[in-house]
Amino acid sequence: MTVDLRSEYRFWHFADRHRELLRARFPDVRWAVLEKETEAPDLPRSDAVLAWRFSAEQLDRAPHLRWLACPAAGSEHLPVAEAARREVIVTRGVGYHGVPMAEHVMGLVLGFARGLFLSAARQSVHRWWKDEVASEFRDVAGSTMTVVGCGAVGHDVARLASAVGMRVWGVRRRPALGGSPHVERWYGSDEADDALGGADVVVNLLPSTVSTTHYFDTARFSALRPGAVFINVGRGSTVDEAALLQALESRRVSWCGLDVTAAKPPALNDPLRHHPRVVLTPKSAVFTHRYMDEAVSYFAENLERYLAGRPLQGVVDASSDDPPTSTVAASGSVGGR
Amino acid sequence: MTVDLRSEYRFWHFADRHRELLRARFPDVRWAVLEKETEAPDLPRSDAVLAWRFSAEQLDRAPHLRWLACPAAGSEHLPVAEAARREVIVTRGVGYHGVPMAEHVMGLVLGFARGLFLSAARQSVHRWWKDEVASEFRDVAGSTMTVVGCGAVGHDVARLASAVGMRVWGVRRRPALGGSPHVERWYGSDEADDALGGADVVVNLLPSTVSTTHYFDTARFSALRPGAVFINVGRGSTVDEAALLQALESRRVSWCGLDVTAAKPPALNDPLRHHPRVVLTPKSAVFTHRYMDEAVSYFAENLERYLAGRPLQGVVDASSDDPPTSTVAASGSVGGR
Repeated sequence: MTVDLRSEYRFWHFADRHRELLRARFPDVRWAVLEKETEAPDLPRSDAVLAWRFSAEQLDRAPHLRWLACPAAGSEHLPVAEAARREVIVTRGVGYHGVPMAEHVMGLVLGFARGLFLSAARQSVHRWWKDEVASEFRDVAGSTMTVVGCGAVGHDVARLASAVGMRVWGVRRRPALGGSPHVERWYGSDEADDALGGADVVVNLLPSTVSTTHYFDTARFSALRPGAVFINVGRGSTVDEAALLQALESRRVSWCGLDVTAAKPPALNDPLRHHPRVVLTPKSAVFTHRYMDEAVSYFAENLERYLAGRPLQGVVDASSDDPPTSTVAASGSVGGR
Repeated sequence: MTVDLRSEYRFWHFADRHRELLRARFPDVRWAVLEKETEAPDLPRSDAVLAWRFSAEQLDRAPHLRWLACPAAGSEHLPVAEAARREVIVTRGVGYHGVPMAEHVMGLVLGFARGLFLSAARQSVHRWWKDEVASEFRDVAGSTMTVVGCGAVGHDVARLASAVGMRVWGVRRRPALGGSPHVERWYGSDEADDALGGADVVVNLLPSTVSTTHYFDTARFSALRPGAVFINVGRGSTVDEAALLQALESRRVSWCGLDVTAAKPPALNDPLRHHPRVVLTPKSAVFTHRYMDEAVSYFAENLERYLAGRPLQGVVDASSDDPPTSTVAASGSVGGR
């Protein structure tokens, strides 16, 4: 079992305590933990790999590989199709990305509603901007949030949103799989515009797949209620940024929070960086100091299943009719957690 | 019954629907509703007044006045001592200021924790600031908030904070009166430093009274855990701003949200306006579009009590050993809701 979870960020780095924990729980597993920058995984001997990244080329050099586990929520940076052809199972992380992302989303929702970003921009230059906040602010309690791509992360977003008194609607390809107690109403993909038209806040959690590319285009933005808030903490590929800028200009979108963009980072002269009603974060919504503890605990549970020959959790479905973009274009992945 | 609730802000203005509602519910009461800027209350004939503001001089001209009702949460802008000498009861608004203030506080808490204000300041000038957010961000779930002056508004703040997984401690003069299900632990005034030392976030909701003047001074700030967040949505008089600036410089206070300041507005060259880790809002925490509906409903309930000779709600205690600052200095009130 090869572990390659090196990261410059402490909360994404496999630490000694995680190694000890896995060794104690699985004494019969032979572990190879990569630590130094220069180390390379012992691919010919590994039957399972736990790694942030893994290339199709590495697959070629790992004849015994049966399981590729990645802690990230997204899988578009992994060679899912190539792995499927070699009967290598790919799993992603499910269940522990939602809490920090929900805190991030609610910080944006409340900050926009209370005029906090407006105030931060005014405080050093305007004498008093009370009138401006008075005409801009919204009540959050009693308002409606629509979560597009409402899966495990959406569940946590819905939980916090409903805790502050918001009504939450969820959109997903298979609404029957929904069932969160915090989502009042479910919509299928073909009913998305109805859910968007009734929302004060739209949260985009779509993954990067074939069908989600530029999902939010001019037509989709025109389905929004005028003055809606738009937050993207999913994938940058799902938004047509020219259409988003137009929606901001026409005030169809009043305020916008972007944790992901088409280019990462966007060019310094990208108008989204400079728009006064856009808050851009550096793909940090998923930051949490608990990350690796929870990722290792999730992985350990999956390893129990693997060793017992039981079905794994978080399996990426390579045969889906809407596969991750990686299965289509091997290059150009946006990567990330 | 004279109603003088004129305001430039629609949500603080007594509207036709409020007048109709009160007339229908109290057909035997004679109403005088002031609307035009130039109108003056018919003080010689009023036995009760519902007003944003009322001066000691107006008391002199209202010989029959028995009840002065103000929708605001604070009472330091009212002639409480003079009213008591004339046996005029003064009531303030209790119960409907908390929800918008709690949304405001949580917007600041989550915004600071997720690096949202930092990001907003960086996005147009820095290429990528992911490392900076990675070293600054905090997890909100599992952290501790101490609410100083934890009364009715504090209850709503505690409700939202605990909904996002925070532990909430309350400080108040008489902790026995606490009893919110969302407050884990209560502290009396003399135990405040213990509650402050354990907090990741300190929310100041103190009213403007004799004993709260510069309550947060150098000694008090040094009781905070290094790197704590400090939010003042109470009254500006309760904070020594020189001490706050020192605490920000030493990073005793990491981030600070101020909805109130000693001067309103603060001078354009006030260093608090320009500090990169201060977010200043224009006394807007209490903004809500539901304000007047809820204030009128609260008032109507009190009017029922008044007409039936029963005790009123929200009575300002003029005989308190810690009276509002108005009873000490007739001038210099900071006013407001």
